[in-house]
Formats: sequence, structure tokens, C-alpha cells
Amino acid sequence: MNTTKFMQLALDEAKKSGEDLPIGCVIVKNGEIIASAHNEKELMGNPTAHAEMLCIKKASKMLGTRMNECEMYVTLEPCPMCMWAIIEARVGKLFFGAYDSLYGGSTVLNLKDLANSKIEIKGGILEEECSALIKNYFTELRNKNEK
Amino acid sequence: MNTTKFMQLALDEAKKSGEDLPIGCVIVKNGEIIASAHNEKELMGNPTAHAEMLCIKKASKMLGTRMNECEMYVTLEPCPMCMWAIIEARVGKLFFGAYDSLYGGSTVLNLKDLANSKIEIKGGILEEECSALIKNYFTELRNKNEK
Repeated sequence: MNTTKFMQLALDEAKKSGEDLPIGCVIVKNGEIIASAHNEKELMGNPTAHAEMLCIKKASKMLGTRMNECEMYVTLEPCPMCMWAIIEARVGKLFFGAYDSLYGGSTVLNLKDLANSKIEIKGGILEEECSALIKNYFTELRNKNEK
Repeated sequence: MNTTKFMQLALDEAKKSGEDLPIGCVIVKNGEIIASAHNEKELMGNPTAHAEMLCIKKASKMLGTRMNECEMYVTLEPCPMCMWAIIEARVGKLFFGAYDSLYGGSTVLNLKDLANSKIEIKGGILEEECSALIKNYFTELRNKNEK
């Protein structure tokens, strides 16, 4: 399976997040990346500018509102906003890296069942690398604020 | 209170939705409307282009990611995607018209408590008019499809 390959590409995308919490996302169709995005919430000053939302917006320009044949790879478990957007976009398969034990839209909340969605979801892909990226971000932020 | 006045303006906005499900939204600060939007999901071919998301995006251009002093008026109870976005945007007060008994982000799911948010929420403002607008849309759609 190519899941680790695409998650690695989502990780590469996450590293472009600059001052924002590093989250990356790619959408794949027929083995090809058709959209990629990273978190730009603070950069854009827009609370909805999560990686997944930006990625769906890009992909929708090509595919409209039906992404059944697509796979999404995202480095952190989507929040409820993004998870519902992924379901609304009819994404076929969702792979995520780190789990979000506070606000995870597929583990803390089961939005898939609420929506009666058929999306296939698998978490924990390159989990360690994905978690480390986020932890390092917060460590650096803390160190910066303590200076 | 001006809640019915502003909900009426959200209703007027909803009527601009064209072929899309008629949902309208306004964001108010200090008694002035600072952003308004209607559902453009099908028009834009973007599954995330709900009225609330577009309205938050517009307001964030002025206010960034902190809308504590704002009130949002929306004709239908926000879905989980929009409800989480409203919470992320730190909107102070949310007023909605019709209840969504299937996917309502504040009644079916209690996202406010999950997020430990202080947002004040009140539903049922001009409920009858807001519900009628949506019901009429589906009646017309059915009639059109039966022709």
C-alpha cells in the first residue's frame, strides 16, 4: 500500500505551515495527488483555514462536491468542522496520522455514523512522525514565549 | 431586542441562494452588520461553501480569528462543520431560526460543551418563516423533478 508514501507527502506539506500549527493534507485520486494544503489559520487570519478545508476547496474546483473516488491523507485526526466537510465532500477514504484525543471528529465524536456515511477511516499512519511534528511545534512555541 | 430584525435580514440573505438550499447568515457587531452570506454550495461546487462559513471568512478579513463581540444570525441551526467553525471563530452569540433535528450542531450534538465554549446560543428566532423557506424549496424541487 501507498498509504505511508502519501502520508509522508502530507507531512512534507505540514512543514510548510510556518507559524501555524503544522498540519498537512493531500487528496489523491487514481494514485495521483490532485490537491495539497497546509494549515493557514493564523496566516490568513481565518479560523476555517484548516489544511483539510483548503485542500477540499482546491479539489472541488476540479471535482465539484463529489469526491467518492478520492483518498485524503491528513497528519492529524480532523476536528469536527473538517470531519463534517470531508463527509459532505463524499471523500471515499480518510487516512490520518496522529489521533486527537480531545476533539477528534472520528474517535471522540463519531460523525461518520451520525451522517450515515460510508467513508472508510484509518488512523495511526506514520503516527509517531505526525505526533512529533505537533509536539515539537508546541515545545518551540513554549521556549519562544519563555525567552 | 433586535434579534427578529437581524433574523429577518438573514432571511432576506437566504433568498439570494438561487438553486442552493436557501440559508442566510449575517454577523453583527455593535448593532451593525459586518458580513452577510448565503449558501453557495452548489453554485460554487464547493461542499464547504455554507452560508456560515462564507460569512465567517468575510468577517475574519476585518476581525481575524476572534469574533467574541459578534452575534451571528443564521436561518437554520448550523451543521457540525459550521458549528465548530463558529466556535473556533469565538463568535459571542449565535441565534438561529429553524432547528435541524437530524444534524444540528447544538441540539443533536452538543459541540459547545465538547469545546468548553462560552458561546450563547438561542434557536427558534422567526422559526416558522425560516422553516417555511426550506420546506418551500424542497416542495418546488420535488414539483420540478416530477414534471
